[in-house]
Amino acid sequence: MPNYKMVLAYDGTSYNGWQKQGNTRNTIQGKLEFILSRLLEEEIEVDGSGRTDAGAHAKGQVANFHCSKDIECERMLQKLNKSLGNDIAVFSLERINDRFHSRLNAKAKVYEYRIWNDNISNVFEGRYMFQSADTLDLERMRLAAKEFIGDHDFKAFCSNKRYKKTTVRKIYSIDIEKIESEIRITFCGNGFLYNMVRIMAGTILQAGEGKFTQEDIKKMLESKNREVAGVTLPAQGLTLVRVEY
Amino acid sequence: MPNYKMVLAYDGTSYNGWQKQGNTRNTIQGKLEFILSRLLEEEIEVDGSGRTDAGAHAKGQVANFHCSKDIECERMLQKLNKSLGNDIAVFSLERINDRFHSRLNAKAKVYEYRIWNDNISNVFEGRYMFQSADTLDLERMRLAAKEFIGDHDFKAFCSNKRYKKTTVRKIYSIDIEKIESEIRITFCGNGFLYNMVRIMAGTILQAGEGKFTQEDIKKMLESKNREVAGVTLPAQGLTLVRVEY
Repeated sequence: MPNYKMVLAYDGTSYNGWQKQGNTRNTIQGKLEFILSRLLEEEIEVDGSGRTDAGAHAKGQVANFHCSKDIECERMLQKLNKSLGNDIAVFSLERINDRFHSRLNAKAKVYEYRIWNDNISNVFEGRYMFQSADTLDLERMRLAAKEFIGDHDFKAFCSNKRYKKTTVRKIYSIDIEKIESEIRITFCGNGFLYNMVRIMAGTILQAGEGKFTQEDIKKMLESKNREVAGVTLPAQGLTLVRVEY
Repeated sequence: MPNYKMVLAYDGTSYNGWQKQGNTRNTIQGKLEFILSRLLEEEIEVDGSGRTDAGAHAKGQVANFHCSKDIECERMLQKLNKSLGNDIAVFSLERINDRFHSRLNAKAKVYEYRIWNDNISNVFEGRYMFQSADTLDLERMRLAAKEFIGDHDFKAFCSNKRYKKTTVRKIYSIDIEKIESEIRITFCGNGFLYNMVRIMAGTILQAGEGKFTQEDIKKMLESKNREVAGVTLPAQGLTLVRVEY
């Protein structure tokens, strides 16, 4: 069956995350499947490059679906965007080789976690950031982040205790930028466990507050114990930026 | 009584506008007065440079209030921002001469109206724009906007039919920029009537769609008849940028 690839963005504020749950349409996947099935007049199943948490956002999520029809992509893209409303936007829709799978073929993913570090709220972008007025030491945050680079068992940085498969992941880079009062942490890795980015971001934030040293991060990784790592920051600060194949 | 000036921003999405209405705290003015009265332990009345509509936003609204106490401004600013939550931010609070009045002393106001002109939604900033996928001719929009510059009776560009005072206002400039898919119209004038920016923006948009010519705008102004002018665009695209004194 013909296979189609989409690149899309969403404001996840009012969704229960990417993955469909039972009959609810209040997930990104659920809404896409509902609308595509209606437009294409057959049952469509959409596979995403990965689940995003309830409340998390995406600037460049990738998904694919199979359809028995030969879709006129440009027209379908317009119809799809019209039906989706204002908080999901599909940038592209194209035919791709039948074996392409958005999750299994992903080579790298880039996430950003945004922290608004000011006494005064950011009223216009606040819903896409975690707001903290605490004093943060960027140098300490960068040193802490360094410890995550490379291949590690991230069991301590995962909310799911019963992971059956390997919890080893490779982090290619973590960049920490300061843009006015915003601290933006950009993570690039070959894959991320459940809540992994939010826990790493929380741990880096706490390192910036002086709670953890670089040495502590090393011990957290070795412990493979979630209790030892830092806090899980809220989903609203998290955005899936892009997926590389 | 000591007089204090504030500069503030707000996301107006969930408010019934600036002006308090009866007992509701769901207006910017109502919320500010409620919190300041509590923090300062006396009844505070806040005057704004002007009302903003329900759903409209501000990046630089100015307001002032009198208080019998000698306020420690830096500390009060922190307390105020803590109490206000995430959709109102006060940037500054300072003592000002007793005769300063944020509305009566305003010399110019700058508003922007943002239009997202694309088939694909802007999921992250969409709540601050009017979204239109129609083809718009920027040159026609700029020509139409020109007609508003200078002193005019804007009775046709006002939703309030029973205006008792003069409806003459002076527009200093209207700039129309294209930033990717966004068309941003920035209005600077000595004052604006009720809905005046939204009706001018609607008329300029319709000129861009080919519905009105420069000559039509001239006739609209002369008519002094609201029925003749263009549509009132939604409040969500409107932001008060700054007030000049």
